Amino acid sequence: MPVCLVGTKVKGKPNFMAVGWFSKVNVNPPLMMISILKVQYTAEGIKENGVFSINFPGKALVAETDFCGLVSGRNVDKSYVFDLQYGELENAPMIGECPMCFELRLRESMELPDNYIFIGEIVAAYVDEKYVTDGKENLLATEPLVLTEGPINQYVYAELGPKFANTFDVGKKFIK
Amino acid sequence: MPVCLVGTKVKGKPNFMAVGWFSKVNVNPPLMMISILKVQYTAEGIKENGVFSINFPGKALVAETDFCGLVSGRNVDKSYVFDLQYGELENAPMIGECPMCFELRLRESMELPDNYIFIGEIVAAYVDEKYVTDGKENLLATEPLVLTEGPINQYVYAELGPKFANTFDVGKKFIK
Repeated sequence: MPVCLVGTKVKGKPNFMAVGWFSKVNVNPPLMMISILKVQYTAEGIKENGVFSINFPGKALVAETDFCGLVSGRNVDKSYVFDLQYGELENAPMIGECPMCFELRLRESMELPDNYIFIGEIVAAYVDEKYVTDGKENLLATEPLVLTEGPINQYVYAELGPKFANTFDVGKKFIK
Repeated sequence: MPVCLVGTKVKGKPNFMAVGWFSKVNVNPPLMMISILKVQYTAEGIKENGVFSINFPGKALVAETDFCGLVSGRNVDKSYVFDLQYGELENAPMIGECPMCFELRLRESMELPDNYIFIGEIVAAYVDEKYVTDGKENLLATEPLVLTEGPINQYVYAELGPKFANTFDVGKKFIK
């Protein structure tokens, strides 16, 4: 699974949480969902303000990302490790060092036994201009951070290798 | 995003669809969500039978996976390229060649403007024994297939690189 950092303000203070359970869920409007434990501090901030950010750390931010998964915002101010940035939503802090950041407005919530699903609409998206050529972003070049299960049943960070095939291309040989 | 193949039976026939919008969403019971366009043929099968499978193709199945994204089950029987397997759910066909497969029973649905979210409970999970040592699976060894946006704004398949850091470890340096 890819890893993102979800930004919120809780009781007026910026907080970031590492999240691996998230996905796009609708084309238009562009909606994304995150799933987090109900007890998590970030849930309080989303319910309080109805907004959040999704920030994509590249490989270079692996230690900062891991730090955000190690400790709770209830006890520790994690925001000191980041260059905080704001766009259109004053309660959705973003991370200046991340190659790509989204601001989202909460649209739907769902309560499951352990987790909440929060579905937000992307109201603005930012990509570091060094990954943009002729108006098109190259996400592979941002060196996305991926979380997977390694050989000792422990979650590990992996990087993406190079592309090795194009979509809607390599499968054509099976069309009869 | 990772890529999975969602297996259903539609009007009695096995069908598979390539899906990149999916995530775990609850710890216990283990729930996963997929988001697919409402017009997709797979949606008919899930609504018809209330079950589906999620199959994780490794890098070796990139052409078969791409094929499942190229054509619709409405027009083409895609199942001929796979070794079909069944577990506990007779209407949730799985793919024998995939290193890991889940069978799911539909628990919740949500209708969004373009997409459905289907949330299923994993009722059984299968991992090819060659990726299991002492009862623990090594998912990194299955060479998961990843979809990302490449330099020309086209989706491309990438592989995972080797692990380069452990979770709950590399971030400890930021704890004061």
